[in-house]
Amino acid sequence: MQSLLDDVIARNRQWTQKGKVADYIPALSTANSDALGICVTDVNGQEWAAGDARTFFSIQSIVKAVTLLCALEDAPIRSIAKVISFEVCSDSFDSIANLETSRSHKPLNPLINSGAIAIIPFISGKAYEEKFLRVVKLIRQMTRNQSIEVNDKVYKSETLTGNRNRALAYYMKSTGTLSGDVEEVLDIYFRLCSIEVTCHDIARIGAVLAGDGLMPGTGEAVANPNSCRIVKAMMSTCGMYNESGAFATSTGIPAKSGVGGGIMAAIPGKMGIGVVGPALNSKGNSVAGIRVLSDLSSKLKLSIY
Amino acid sequence: MQSLLDDVIARNRQWTQKGKVADYIPALSTANSDALGICVTDVNGQEWAAGDARTFFSIQSIVKAVTLLCALEDAPIRSIAKVISFEVCSDSFDSIANLETSRSHKPLNPLINSGAIAIIPFISGKAYEEKFLRVVKLIRQMTRNQSIEVNDKVYKSETLTGNRNRALAYYMKSTGTLSGDVEEVLDIYFRLCSIEVTCHDIARIGAVLAGDGLMPGTGEAVANPNSCRIVKAMMSTCGMYNESGAFATSTGIPAKSGVGGGIMAAIPGKMGIGVVGPALNSKGNSVAGIRVLSDLSSKLKLSIY
Amino acid sequence: MQSLLDDVIARNRQWTQKGKVADYIPALSTANSDALGICVTDVNGQEWAAGDARTFFSIQSIVKAVTLLCALEDAPIRSIAKVISFEVCSDSFDSIANLETSRSHKPLNPLINSGAIAIIPFISGKAYEEKFLRVVKLIRQMTRNQSIEVNDKVYKSETLTGNRNRALAYYMKSTGTLSGDVEEVLDIYFRLCSIEVTCHDIARIGAVLAGDGLMPGTGEAVANPNSCRIVKAMMSTCGMYNESGAFATSTGIPAKSGVGGGIMAAIPGKMGIGVVGPALNSKGNSVAGIRVLSDLSSKLKLSIY
Amino acid sequence: MQSLLDDVIARNRQWTQKGKVADYIPALSTANSDALGICVTDVNGQEWAAGDARTFFSIQSIVKAVTLLCALEDAPIRSIAKVISFEVCSDSFDSIANLETSRSHKPLNPLINSGAIAIIPFISGKAYEEKFLRVVKLIRQMTRNQSIEVNDKVYKSETLTGNRNRALAYYMKSTGTLSGDVEEVLDIYFRLCSIEVTCHDIARIGAVLAGDGLMPGTGEAVANPNSCRIVKAMMSTCGMYNESGAFATSTGIPAKSGVGGGIMAAIPGKMGIGVVGPALNSKGNSVAGIRVLSDLSSKLKLSIY
Repeated sequence: MQSLLDDVIARNRQWTQKGKVADYIPALSTANSDALGICVTDVNGQEWAAGDARTFFSIQSIVKAVTLLCALEDAPIRSIAKVISFEVCSDSFDSIANLETSRSHKPLNPLINSGAIAIIPFISGKAYEEKFLRVVKLIRQMTRNQSIEVNDKVYKSETLTGNRNRALAYYMKSTGTLSGDVEEVLDIYFRLCSIEVTCHDIARIGAVLAGDGLMPGTGEAVANPNSCRIVKAMMSTCGMYNESGAFATSTGIPAKSGVGGGIMAAIPGKMGIGVVGPALNSKGNSVAGIRVLSDLSSKLKLSIY
Repeated sequence: MQSLLDDVIARNRQWTQKGKVADYIPALSTANSDALGICVTDVNGQEWAAGDARTFFSIQSIVKAVTLLCALEDAPIRSIAKVISFEVCSDSFDSIANLETSRSHKPLNPLINSGAIAIIPFISGKAYEEKFLRVVKLIRQMTRNQSIEVNDKVYKSETLTGNRNRALAYYMKSTGTLSGDVEEVLDIYFRLCSIEVTCHDIARIGAVLAGDGLMPGTGEAVANPNSCRIVKAMMSTCGMYNESGAFATSTGIPAKSGVGGGIMAAIPGKMGIGVVGPALNSKGNSVAGIRVLSDLSSKLKLSIY
Repeated sequence: MQSLLDDVIARNRQWTQKGKVADYIPALSTANSDALGICVTDVNGQEWAAGDARTFFSIQSIVKAVTLLCALEDAPIRSIAKVISFEVCSDSFDSIANLETSRSHKPLNPLINSGAIAIIPFISGKAYEEKFLRVVKLIRQMTRNQSIEVNDKVYKSETLTGNRNRALAYYMKSTGTLSGDVEEVLDIYFRLCSIEVTCHDIARIGAVLAGDGLMPGTGEAVANPNSCRIVKAMMSTCGMYNESGAFATSTGIPAKSGVGGGIMAAIPGKMGIGVVGPALNSKGNSVAGIRVLSDLSSKLKLSIY
Repeated sequence: MQSLLDDVIARNRQWTQKGKVADYIPALSTANSDALGICVTDVNGQEWAAGDARTFFSIQSIVKAVTLLCALEDAPIRSIAKVISFEVCSDSFDSIANLETSRSHKPLNPLINSGAIAIIPFISGKAYEEKFLRVVKLIRQMTRNQSIEVNDKVYKSETLTGNRNRALAYYMKSTGTLSGDVEEVLDIYFRLCSIEVTCHDIARIGAVLAGDGLMPGTGEAVANPNSCRIVKAMMSTCGMYNESGAFATSTGIPAKSGVGGGIMAAIPGKMGIGVVGPALNSKGNSVAGIRVLSDLSSKLKLSIY
């Protein structure tokens, strides 16, 4: 495995030159576009890493998989489904047009921005601060990393420039989709997106999802199997923005990407994978990251199809 | 003329039963749905009224014609056209989808909500308060009515429930269409929409537009002919929300409606007409108001086509 | 008037270099992109011409104004309005998306392709051939030109490459909007679009519309005033494709353009104007033609607003 | 297994009362809405059936999985991907709006109507008849059923009423997406959709896909593993129309439905499943069929996530 990972990283490093680091949030534009790293954590707790696996990056949309997991653990899916669909989305991740044109005005799924904002009220916790801590604590538990923190610079940058997300939130407020105080919900959303992680962290989150909620190695249950399966189903159909179909075709594994350049994969029953490569394609996905996962999927026969 | 107006009001009062008073802003829902009134002010300053012409109502979108006039007087149209199109709009007046799907992300015209918000920064005045006063002063001048004021109850209601407009404004902020502080611009927008008027007031505004900027009777110039002509062109093509084409066909006069139930018409070279009838159809236009204008247009041969 | 026309043509000839001759139909691409001509026919029958007023060009979408006139004369507007809206359209003239996204699946108006196809069954005549002849005869009568004919080369070209129009027609057939045989209706549509005219011809058609259905000079009635007014209302709000709002703002006259480079204007109570300039802008309108009309409108104070 | 299937059918038969048999094609409306049947074929060739497994039904959109398989076997995916995306689709299966609004004008995937029509030219065979026979032969081979035939009544009905599909095809012809003769391509499409099958037939097709191209029992290779995996990836993300996300969440297996009431599932490495239940929900999927598959997936732990 180790030599395979080394090899895959070496072979695909050239692809880091083909993308562009996200710049719509100033604080993200400072990421190292040449970085490429990987970590694999299997469901038994074994771990391998290669390349820039210790590089910190912004979790961004990858956190949506954990936010969804928390909501599914804390509220009945029937309640959630009343305001958020669990459907595929052919528009870009920050689309507002589909909120207006769909009959129900519901976000299409919990892994696009609108749905990820609307799901926050379903997380346990009276005050919004508690909801935030609920998610952070689960991330620290799944990653066995108590030093997981929000990057304040990114958080401030998100807050200052997050007008598209504000538009989504106010629109959903106007249609009754979003309950609670808009600015408070957005504040939680911005803070969660600004959490800083490494490939190790997201590989471990992926491994918990892969193991249907059991911690790799110890077997301690931190989430229900059914919640984990729903998260993986959503990752498979909607996890790579509007490139999800092409990724399913080429790679065939449940994965969630973020504009920080990370991709978290969860291979059911097998392993979690964390990849980072901040240079993105036009859909917002890591160019080299997709290549690495596609190679690995083909070598290790990871496709679920 | 007087007996004609009396007759037209009497004949169309039944139509007030066919619509529904706007309820998306709580403060509007208290309007009297049975009311129906009209005032005609010709370009020489003669004035006739019938029915509930003294009933106060919320100016709402009718103010967009004056906001546009101020912007055209205060800034070169080339600058305005860089961020706002002057095009027809087949979507509803508060649509956000067309901001996303159009290539330029520009509001389609200055008479729909998005365009009316985006045009505020073009009005003279350093502070936003000055921009607000600029519009109010022009309204007081055109109406010869110094007691024109914002209705505070409506204004508070707008502010509390104006999340769709907030969504539009933050979306335009995210695309660079809207300059300035979003909440300050929205505050001006909400206050302007909350101005209280009667049919007399809007008939006089219409008469100034009809007279290419000259005050009826006195002939004092308060706006440029070209600005007035652009406002009338926009009223003719976009003034009745997405019922503008049907209204052009049936009635054929430049007009701007508001969800307060008012309709202001400006017949070029002839007269201004103010109508009120708070019961609205599904497009947001006064049911009885449209009937009254259609009858009057046909009797007085007012159609510009 | 004559020297004004000569002057306007001379001053605007440079604009013929700024556009591009339509090439989506091969037979149109052979038009002379340098051509620029104008003819004015007033409601008393006086006529002036300048530039390439005798140049033949393809009538294309200008015929939609006449098709609409025939339908309004031959069928009650209530029947027509059941399948075609009379509304403005912010999409391009050959859009099919709005047929799907609007609730009623109705074409937005009779001057865009979908609406112009769907209106054909409303024209008098049992067989489709009769409907075609009905329109052609009216055109010959209005133009006092019995040699008006279809250009066979253009007609064949339309038929061969008219797949977008076929898609519109079959879509409307599937929703029940279009009655009759699709290929027969399309055949009439293609033939009508392929009629060959000069500026003199369309100026005379415009003059009849301007005169509310009376032949210039003779005063013979060939159409009802109300039908003519509806056509002019539609021309004012929808006649210049999705540039109708901008044209209303800059020029302020009822007009209908075609991708053959012609523009027909009808100034109510005054005159008809025919312009040709085959070099088009991105919306499908004659670049120099718009300039000519804008100049003329300003010099002669033709704006209806 | 047998008693499980009997039980699942018995328990879910009530759901056949909740849907509505497709009626947009007259010949489909005669299907028995009470029918409910299932067949399971495992990759070793063992077969179980329960309920109305011998009931004939129209294959409809299920054939799109086989059409896609043939195209992937016969042409490089790069060529196909030039005109058809492999992306998820949030619109209905017969949407034409997304062809216009997407920048590339490409069908979103090969399992919606537009993509399934556009993929036909990629199937081997000079004449269209040969392309048709290529697909039919593969179906006969995979089902071990030489009596598989087109139902002529359904085929004629499709041809007569298939105007929406004609609109899609002519639109794609106009944008250059569809090569070849439109009416010939449509004829093949209509014939393929009209093939008559039973649950046994589609369970066997599913089993071949499940076995990565090997015939159950014999192990004879009839398709490449990679082509089969792409088909299953597309089925998982796009196979249940715009209910694909919800189905992934609730059931978690690759499946393709048809408006004839059938659903074909392919559980990787395990089995094919064929279900029929002609009463459909508003998305066009069998109401009882989805319940049966969901129950079975949960009992047999079939979810791939």
